Amino acid sequence: MRTADKKAWIHALYNAGLREIEVGSFVPAKVLPQMADTSELVEYASRLPGLAVAVLVPNLKGAEAAVLAGANKITIPFSCSETHSLKNVRRTHEQMIREIHAVGDYLQSLPKQTRPHFEGGLSTAFGCTLEGDVPESRVVDFAEILIKAGCDEVGLSDTTGYANPAQVRRLIRKVHERVGADKLTGIHLHNTRGLGLANAVTAIDEGLTTIDASQGGLGGCPFAPGASGNIVTEDLVFMLEAMGISTGIDYGRLMAARQLLSDALPGEPLYGMVPLAGLPKNFKSS
Amino acid sequence: MRTADKKAWIHALYNAGLREIEVGSFVPAKVLPQMADTSELVEYASRLPGLAVAVLVPNLKGAEAAVLAGANKITIPFSCSETHSLKNVRRTHEQMIREIHAVGDYLQSLPKQTRPHFEGGLSTAFGCTLEGDVPESRVVDFAEILIKAGCDEVGLSDTTGYANPAQVRRLIRKVHERVGADKLTGIHLHNTRGLGLANAVTAIDEGLTTIDASQGGLGGCPFAPGASGNIVTEDLVFMLEAMGISTGIDYGRLMAARQLLSDALPGEPLYGMVPLAGLPKNFKSS
Repeated sequence: MRTADKKAWIHALYNAGLREIEVGSFVPAKVLPQMADTSELVEYASRLPGLAVAVLVPNLKGAEAAVLAGANKITIPFSCSETHSLKNVRRTHEQMIREIHAVGDYLQSLPKQTRPHFEGGLSTAFGCTLEGDVPESRVVDFAEILIKAGCDEVGLSDTTGYANPAQVRRLIRKVHERVGADKLTGIHLHNTRGLGLANAVTAIDEGLTTIDASQGGLGGCPFAPGASGNIVTEDLVFMLEAMGISTGIDYGRLMAARQLLSDALPGEPLYGMVPLAGLPKNFKSS
Repeated sequence: MRTADKKAWIHALYNAGLREIEVGSFVPAKVLPQMADTSELVEYASRLPGLAVAVLVPNLKGAEAAVLAGANKITIPFSCSETHSLKNVRRTHEQMIREIHAVGDYLQSLPKQTRPHFEGGLSTAFGCTLEGDVPESRVVDFAEILIKAGCDEVGLSDTTGYANPAQVRRLIRKVHERVGADKLTGIHLHNTRGLGLANAVTAIDEGLTTIDASQGGLGGCPFAPGASGNIVTEDLVFMLEAMGISTGIDYGRLMAARQLLSDALPGEPLYGMVPLAGLPKNFKSS
């Protein structure tokens, strides 16, 4: 996708009412060349008033680039499955924890007004396509370790689309109990097995307030075989608005952003049930 | 679908562990010719030990045919939207209530051992593609009217795929409060807007125990424009088993039944995310 198209898309999402957008990843351009323009996108998005600009960073170098560009939130993925960690960022758990410590120390050295919010993303928290089950006690332990290493909060990530509502509820409660409810407010879900929105509604019921989604369900993880895109923003927004939870998002404008995405990526399948079926007759937003 | 194929499919589902199957509808063959073999299917399915054989009936005549064939459960759809009722069964609310009374009286005249369980299906309970919003108070009133007319219980049906988890929770509670929790144990959901499993998990949380689903999401309603198939049995079973709720269903055999269905209906799209993505690595049933 061309940088100009990405900017237009970010702007369209902003116009639709989104107030937090993850615009890219600070990863080596030779690994993911499609992310080479992340600095430019962060700088662009930072000029949109009231928008929290989030990025993914794999390491200290990425965190420094994120701060330089002016990101408001950085997420460092920490895979609870060491096998996945080695494939994804070529680092052991011990190496990753050391890296997170380094990022935490670096951020603390910054003046408060330029310091981005620092999230440790507990990926493969609900199971791994390579290792299978991931013990919940291990995820809870890592949550604590990441907070101690300097993360402002942790997030639960169902990288592989393995999560189910009972597990979502249980794991949120356990992490909340260990590190405090204010240290886990977000979840990252995939709809690989159709349970994405069921998991989302459970997470909301447990008090989480940041539910990652991607427009058209775009995405996936190149290093988690079989992983499909995130839950679909359009469907999530419909669900929340229908439930009486105001998102501040205008559905018509969200669909305009989808059109823009579709035009910029011809041939790329865009997912979502509501875009296909349409809103219910006489539907009113919350 | 040929009758022999339907029988083989029913048998395959039975072998997979299903213990309640709606095998057809007793509707005039000139309206839905594909349902002309329902008597034969009920008779066939009734010989499978321990299987509850359910059918849909629109009126007294259908109920008599169902009893004659040996059905264990009959559901009469009552549309909370009168516009949809007129389109679907060409009857006003008053006419339908009279019909349900007649069915109730007829069933009470039968010896207890031949009397099928009688459910009033509150269709378009969560909204109507023709009328739009359907007031919850109206649905609750109709639940009471149907019980008084002789139904053993009522079911909530999201005919149009409009339901959301908050509405599901609220409506179940209201109906339970009005007619008693034992008089509403089932829900019928469509995945038209992607919220099917989120609604199912909420219904289960509210104590419902019968969640309608169709293999491959096959189905729809010819008189509810835009309605797509039910929630997908394969995905629902996965969700429940993953959550630790034992269904008694063998996933491999359920997939064998899907294959049989796919062979019998070439060209018909079969839905379901788990059939595409596969079960998680090392997945164990509950």
